[in-house]
Amino acid sequence: MRGVVMYGPGDVRVQDRPDPTILKPTDAIIRLSATCICGSDLWPYRGADQLSDPSPMGHEYVGIVEEIGSAVTGIKPGQFVVGSFFASDNTCEICRAGYQSSCVHRVGIGAEGAQAQRMRVPLADGALVATPDLPDADLVPGFLAASDVLGTGWFAAVAAQAGSGKTVAVVGDGAVGLLGVLAAKQLGAERIIAMSRHQPRQQLAVEFGATDIVSERGDEGVDRIKDLTGGLGAHSVIEAVGTQESMMQAIRATRPGGHVGYVGVSHDVALPGEELFFSHVHLHGGPAPVRRFLPHLMDLIWNRDINPGRVFDLQLPLDQAPTGYRAMDQRQAIKVLLRP
Amino acid sequence: MRGVVMYGPGDVRVQDRPDPTILKPTDAIIRLSATCICGSDLWPYRGADQLSDPSPMGHEYVGIVEEIGSAVTGIKPGQFVVGSFFASDNTCEICRAGYQSSCVHRVGIGAEGAQAQRMRVPLADGALVATPDLPDADLVPGFLAASDVLGTGWFAAVAAQAGSGKTVAVVGDGAVGLLGVLAAKQLGAERIIAMSRHQPRQQLAVEFGATDIVSERGDEGVDRIKDLTGGLGAHSVIEAVGTQESMMQAIRATRPGGHVGYVGVSHDVALPGEELFFSHVHLHGGPAPVRRFLPHLMDLIWNRDINPGRVFDLQLPLDQAPTGYRAMDQRQAIKVLLRP
Repeated sequence: MRGVVMYGPGDVRVQDRPDPTILKPTDAIIRLSATCICGSDLWPYRGADQLSDPSPMGHEYVGIVEEIGSAVTGIKPGQFVVGSFFASDNTCEICRAGYQSSCVHRVGIGAEGAQAQRMRVPLADGALVATPDLPDADLVPGFLAASDVLGTGWFAAVAAQAGSGKTVAVVGDGAVGLLGVLAAKQLGAERIIAMSRHQPRQQLAVEFGATDIVSERGDEGVDRIKDLTGGLGAHSVIEAVGTQESMMQAIRATRPGGHVGYVGVSHDVALPGEELFFSHVHLHGGPAPVRRFLPHLMDLIWNRDINPGRVFDLQLPLDQAPTGYRAMDQRQAIKVLLRP
Repeated sequence: MRGVVMYGPGDVRVQDRPDPTILKPTDAIIRLSATCICGSDLWPYRGADQLSDPSPMGHEYVGIVEEIGSAVTGIKPGQFVVGSFFASDNTCEICRAGYQSSCVHRVGIGAEGAQAQRMRVPLADGALVATPDLPDADLVPGFLAASDVLGTGWFAAVAAQAGSGKTVAVVGDGAVGLLGVLAAKQLGAERIIAMSRHQPRQQLAVEFGATDIVSERGDEGVDRIKDLTGGLGAHSVIEAVGTQESMMQAIRATRPGGHVGYVGVSHDVALPGEELFFSHVHLHGGPAPVRRFLPHLMDLIWNRDINPGRVFDLQLPLDQAPTGYRAMDQRQAIKVLLRP
């Protein structure tokens, strides 16, 4: 089969890779209907994360179950399923508490390489959720978004306690930040301030429910948020970047007693204890337990209540993945869908 | 009047200070029934915090109202009142959300110097809570504890979401940590693990409700907590020290999805973003909004449901404050009550 492999910074190739096979009785093999490139794939692409060897890429996936291991009982061949970037058993104490991405038996999906025609999904019963029937083709991008960016933006909004009567600010205008806007809207936030300086992203933020756009960043951005909130700061701030600047921007834009939900994968971040202490914010985040939210999000998509697939502003055949990486790296595309 | 003044590290003196007077219509003057030395007073005593000038000390106080400003309507002369280390208006949006120690009009009490015979309390209507009647003398230490260490331990337990069915670990065996144990017990925690290597403090922890004692610290302490919690970590961890080691111990002892409530004033702490991200913990803390909890805590004390005054294991006349500082510095006393 064909699959994407990264050889080093800027060097992404589509090549023949061995077809996946059932390795454990709890595995499933799926044929991908769609896959995509993640903002986090840009860290190694830009050299900010090291790769020791050529690495299969991709951890976002939807597709048709082709084969299941002997212990799999919850899904069956022919179903359309959505999974997320950590496979989880969904039965351990941590999963039951809603933190499936820290499942005691979790398996990272990254090594499987979802940017491919087929893939193995470990812990299939715990990891995969099936749609009621095969979805219409136009819904596939939405389900693919649920696999990571929607689930991650949703977790950030929940972690930030976005909800009724709240003013929510969103740091980061990538797909996760934009879907954080959508999540905040769905969760009932009163006012949603998207921080973005890119016109097409501002436009999508508004479409998803943003009521205000702030184009300043850093301390100036914080000042603007304070201006918009009677000097207090937002109740809820979603952080969807992962840098020192974005984390401090999020913390400083939050009022005392407010909540920061952070989902940008932290890179070289060190939080100053004293400032955090006196900020009085709640801080919660990490790798989103997407599995917790999948059933609800898939219902919303199936019923066409939300259209998170709008974040895919470029669709390419899998073989053109290198073009897709370039487009995302140069911010010419918000998010690139690949058709295997 | 007599009052405590710190001149520099290790140099605490009791001397004549000017009697306080009403400076603003919202002030009250109280005659202190009792005051005490705080663990945080040890930071400058040990040279870890700098003092620019000789500083009046003390921010914990209970006493009898002697005089009120013209705008004060909620309390009156002759009442026994409890306040906390930040005076707050208790009416602004931040106060109403329960974060009175970040009140937009807050005034730090430290500069007033509560280790004295009398003191001025700004924003008296917002800051002070009166008892139903004059309390019995044996209740006074408990009310004094409510002024800071009980309110702080309680906030930490609430921030850590200590409650029914939870396993709570407490890092720090000073008065705040010990009262965090008491708070966790009152809030319904199932299991309370006190981390302490000092026998008298272990004993008080058990009296307050600790079910387990762990004497190891750092990574060994974390391993012991994991051993006691099926490898997962505690649901709730109270951090009551404020150092890098204690913060990391608290974060690492918490299970994914669990809560760290931190109230030790951060000193030279920098939290590594990546570890925090993957820890999946909730982090909340800061200067405790003691005022939020005062009415409830004062009820519990008044009704003799709790006896937080037990943390005062040394009582001295105000004039012997230097002896009290030495005893706390050398860990010969948990907490020292001063009688003005």
